[in-house]
Amino acid sequence: MTANKPIIVLVRPQLGQNIGKAARAMLNFGLTEMRLVAPRDGWPNPEAGPAASGADIVLEQAQLFDNVHDAIADCRQIFASTVRRRDLVMPVIGPEEMADRIGASGERSAILFGAERSGLETEEVARASAIVTVPINPEFASVNLAQAVILLAYEWSRRTGLAQPTAKELEPPASHRELEGLINQLNDELEKKGYFHPPSRTQATKNTLRTIFTRTGWSSREVKAIRGVIRALVDPARKR
Amino acid sequence: MTANKPIIVLVRPQLGQNIGKAARAMLNFGLTEMRLVAPRDGWPNPEAGPAASGADIVLEQAQLFDNVHDAIADCRQIFASTVRRRDLVMPVIGPEEMADRIGASGERSAILFGAERSGLETEEVARASAIVTVPINPEFASVNLAQAVILLAYEWSRRTGLAQPTAKELEPPASHRELEGLINQLNDELEKKGYFHPPSRTQATKNTLRTIFTRTGWSSREVKAIRGVIRALVDPARKR
Repeated sequence: MTANKPIIVLVRPQLGQNIGKAARAMLNFGLTEMRLVAPRDGWPNPEAGPAASGADIVLEQAQLFDNVHDAIADCRQIFASTVRRRDLVMPVIGPEEMADRIGASGERSAILFGAERSGLETEEVARASAIVTVPINPEFASVNLAQAVILLAYEWSRRTGLAQPTAKELEPPASHRELEGLINQLNDELEKKGYFHPPSRTQATKNTLRTIFTRTGWSSREVKAIRGVIRALVDPARKR
Repeated sequence: MTANKPIIVLVRPQLGQNIGKAARAMLNFGLTEMRLVAPRDGWPNPEAGPAASGADIVLEQAQLFDNVHDAIADCRQIFASTVRRRDLVMPVIGPEEMADRIGASGERSAILFGAERSGLETEEVARASAIVTVPINPEFASVNLAQAVILLAYEWSRRTGLAQPTAKELEPPASHRELEGLINQLNDELEKKGYFHPPSRTQATKNTLRTIFTRTGWSSREVKAIRGVIRALVDPARKR
């Protein structure tokens, strides 16, 4: 079952106390792998330990990263814990479906949580396969970080006992790194062709392309094939 | 649905902060009725408000009682949130069954939560119809008050019928004809670039590309975007 435990990624967390509480919430449901992206007050943070109330092992093993890209490079299923984004067209699922998907895949999964106030940036959300949203009182939707973590950890734990691994006829999806390679290659080539214009729309267009490719579920082999296709399309000389 | 909302009873809560956080957790899932039994630092408590992050209505309406007996006098179904008690022979249920029972009964229900460290006393637990226990990591079972509240409030809300978002709200996939247009365009362009070689492998390669694009589930809008990308990639002149 170990392989199916999601990694909890805290992106730019502000308070050490909240990191500690998130660690405690994780360990309550048997999750141990925490990754921290650019915590505001550096790492380690002396305020995290006391707030973890004994979940020190999670903090001791926490890994530090500069950006989301590096933090999820080895993951194949990424969920962004956030509300629906008007600027992104991507699947929005509930905690149960997230837990089912994590349980069914057998691949490394990660759940991204944004900073306490500002949340995740659009480009970060666009790296995920799906947005996961807890169905919450629409008139009072302010959830703190550790509580968002415990709800998703609970749901994962609850569903994990029941999850039936589905027949895996398909190849597993490519890793985030592989997909990133494809997206970067495409962006570079499109840049050279002057595709991104006007400049004010560039980031939005890139986000759209990212979500289009992220949700394909393409395997490593398929990503390689498409990279070959892009090379062929831009190669002016290649006539046989 | 209102009649089925459980009352949250905090018994001898110590920190005003925790009372505020519990209020916030309640309101996140639409619960508004809080009762306080002999809070250590009296009531109102100036530390509760800031911790409630806007759930002031729950605190303002909170009712104060001297003992558990009075606090649950008008309730017909009582649940005690605690671990199993060796000294009591009574039903122990999980959050789901609790939620089912609350939903099914139509009677006033209450959930008792004990003090931060000491929990509920045996006589208090004995007043409940059942113990409700969140299935938690047995090696790390220390949950804080507000987190216990949010997990049970979430479960209540989940069973009560707050719809979970589903992926259905996404754009529908493009029609076969649209996808075919994309695949044909790509094949034509790749043909011009001499991508299909040797001839004996051409059909197999085309089949592979077809399956890669067919299973993306791209919408009409996304198919159009990718067709634009292909045009940009093959256009030698398009520099801006």
